[in-house]
Amino acid sequence: MTTVTVKTPPRGFPAAEFEQRATRAQRAMREHGLDALLVTAPQQVRYFTGFDTQFWESPTRPWYVVVPAAGAPVAVIPEIGEPGMRATWVTDVRTWPAPNPGDDGISLLAGTLRELAGAGGTVGAELGPELQLRMPAKQLPQIAEQAGVTIADGTAVIRYCRHVKSELEIDKIRHICQIASDSFAVVPDLIQAGDTERAVVQKMRADLIRRGADSSPYLIGVSGPGGYDNIVMGPTDRVLGTGDLFIIDTGTVFDGYFCDFDRNWAIGTAGDEARRAYEAVWHATEAGIAAARPGVRVCDLWQVMADELAKADSVGNNVGRLGHGLGLQLTEPPSNHPQDETVLEVGTVLSIEPGMEFAPGRMMVHEENIVIREGGAELLTTRATPELPVVS
Amino acid sequence: MTTVTVKTPPRGFPAAEFEQRATRAQRAMREHGLDALLVTAPQQVRYFTGFDTQFWESPTRPWYVVVPAAGAPVAVIPEIGEPGMRATWVTDVRTWPAPNPGDDGISLLAGTLRELAGAGGTVGAELGPELQLRMPAKQLPQIAEQAGVTIADGTAVIRYCRHVKSELEIDKIRHICQIASDSFAVVPDLIQAGDTERAVVQKMRADLIRRGADSSPYLIGVSGPGGYDNIVMGPTDRVLGTGDLFIIDTGTVFDGYFCDFDRNWAIGTAGDEARRAYEAVWHATEAGIAAARPGVRVCDLWQVMADELAKADSVGNNVGRLGHGLGLQLTEPPSNHPQDETVLEVGTVLSIEPGMEFAPGRMMVHEENIVIREGGAELLTTRATPELPVVS
Repeated sequence: MTTVTVKTPPRGFPAAEFEQRATRAQRAMREHGLDALLVTAPQQVRYFTGFDTQFWESPTRPWYVVVPAAGAPVAVIPEIGEPGMRATWVTDVRTWPAPNPGDDGISLLAGTLRELAGAGGTVGAELGPELQLRMPAKQLPQIAEQAGVTIADGTAVIRYCRHVKSELEIDKIRHICQIASDSFAVVPDLIQAGDTERAVVQKMRADLIRRGADSSPYLIGVSGPGGYDNIVMGPTDRVLGTGDLFIIDTGTVFDGYFCDFDRNWAIGTAGDEARRAYEAVWHATEAGIAAARPGVRVCDLWQVMADELAKADSVGNNVGRLGHGLGLQLTEPPSNHPQDETVLEVGTVLSIEPGMEFAPGRMMVHEENIVIREGGAELLTTRATPELPVVS
Repeated sequence: MTTVTVKTPPRGFPAAEFEQRATRAQRAMREHGLDALLVTAPQQVRYFTGFDTQFWESPTRPWYVVVPAAGAPVAVIPEIGEPGMRATWVTDVRTWPAPNPGDDGISLLAGTLRELAGAGGTVGAELGPELQLRMPAKQLPQIAEQAGVTIADGTAVIRYCRHVKSELEIDKIRHICQIASDSFAVVPDLIQAGDTERAVVQKMRADLIRRGADSSPYLIGVSGPGGYDNIVMGPTDRVLGTGDLFIIDTGTVFDGYFCDFDRNWAIGTAGDEARRAYEAVWHATEAGIAAARPGVRVCDLWQVMADELAKADSVGNNVGRLGHGLGLQLTEPPSNHPQDETVLEVGTVLSIEPGMEFAPGRMMVHEENIVIREGGAELLTTRATPELPVVS
């Protein structure tokens, strides 16, 4: 067993970090004509308040946080969450006894929005791409009417806030990337003859916990003879056999922050096609990492990788992009995609994820995580080997 | 270490189960005047199709499934999911290359809704309580307009479908309840002097995996001197000490199905107040289990437990209810709540969860999982001991 040597960053953030987040949001709100920002989803609530709970798994009760034009956020939440929210930097915590089928926070939230946005004010909400409204959707117009406010799309503000990571956020992402890198390194030792995809994935899941990960909300494993046909299903009870390609991809978490990267192995023996495909995506990854600098658009980053893949006779890629942002979520904007013109900034955290179908129904996908620095990319993961590893 | 003796149910469901689900939905859709049902959230997509992926962790791409008035559901999904969806019983799988910022499934879904609901038709959607629309909320009116359909609230149909569990669903819930019961039984052996809440919880997480659980999306631990003040936060790095009360609550999963129950321990020694509170909620649990029969309303079930707690000088309960449904989610309707008149049916799976604040800021919450049978409740969990266990 490898010794665990990774130094664990402190949990949570100082209040100053949350003050900076609120100030950043408020600057963007002014630019977009918003008098307040209403957020409901776990990652937004956590981003603005620091409130950390697994209770999001229960969809019963809606939770609301309102960022006003100035000052700290206001929490409008079920009573069950009051002790937890009171432990954050938020001091204005308004609660109702929930569930209350007759009025589950509607009037309390409406009153708060009227107070903070003003009658006739405009409130931004999670209405756009890559966001989800975590509340009964039919109640939003009711709340707006009762509050006397207009609901507008707050997507641009949320995206602006969460795009660039602070050093403290980067420390957490680097930490989980290192834990997962160390765990990926021992996967060949974990695989035993007769193992199913599921058995190997669950051994890695236990290994990640042992190394200090909090949990692995995303931990997939897919295999197939000479290649796998997707990267989002599994693991299944399929037994790994000689000649298989096997991929594990993980979004593992430390203190709310994700890594998101994968590793590939050939079982017993590797075919030439698979070896060549591996080398092609490995080189495309190198090109992507080298091209990732402040001021570069992600569409241009996509092009650099796409050019490499085209040279290698890619027959397609059902993933639809070549990497993406990450942080409080497994995937975040931007997308390394020909139509995304987002400009990389110092502090953008990104997955570099070139993939290709090298034969019909046979894919090869690589992935590393980086953060953009003044001089270029800092690699957060331990780089995959340049040649397809064969597990004997 | 305890030997694992639980027999593992088969994964997935036969096509006949999905046919029954579609038929059940279609009957309810007719009653509610819906020409089609549109679902977007993981649990609804899985319920109607069997599609099982952890890829929901990525919020980038919306996924749509449409249940027509007759016949099998139609999937309208990103290309990345096609191999997985083709492996389900669904045969009509329509895909688009996603992400596509210009048209992320909008026109494909609009065309499908027009075809299946008819121009001027009414489409039910996840708009109501305890449901979330997993798509950009602002696109739903655009899609409806493009399709020429009206969007209505589909909550009643979804609730009707998911309320009563089939025997195959119950087998999976019983299985995970047994795994978690066995794991809870060894927690006292896992606790070592100087352990933090987090250390114990992570040892239990690893133990659950070893016993065959898939993952534990909800695994909280809270402690405090003489009592804990909430049941939704933690675990933290607080070191357990003599005189603490410690609760672990888990929503652990097998093949998509949750258990949801907790266990309490006193560390080193237990005070009289805590012992009495434990016994009070234990007896309230007994009363709840005994009262849970087909035809009983959950508000009446609540009353039976509330009466027991009142006798024990409860000073409150910030949880807001005394149990709830469960299945594909940690918590599902109904709520054991004075305003919920849902009638228990054969096949309702329920948590019996009486809790009380026995002193200011000090709570005691018990929880067991049951399924309603003709003759009364079948206990799915291994019943907690009648007296507060003390960990030495």
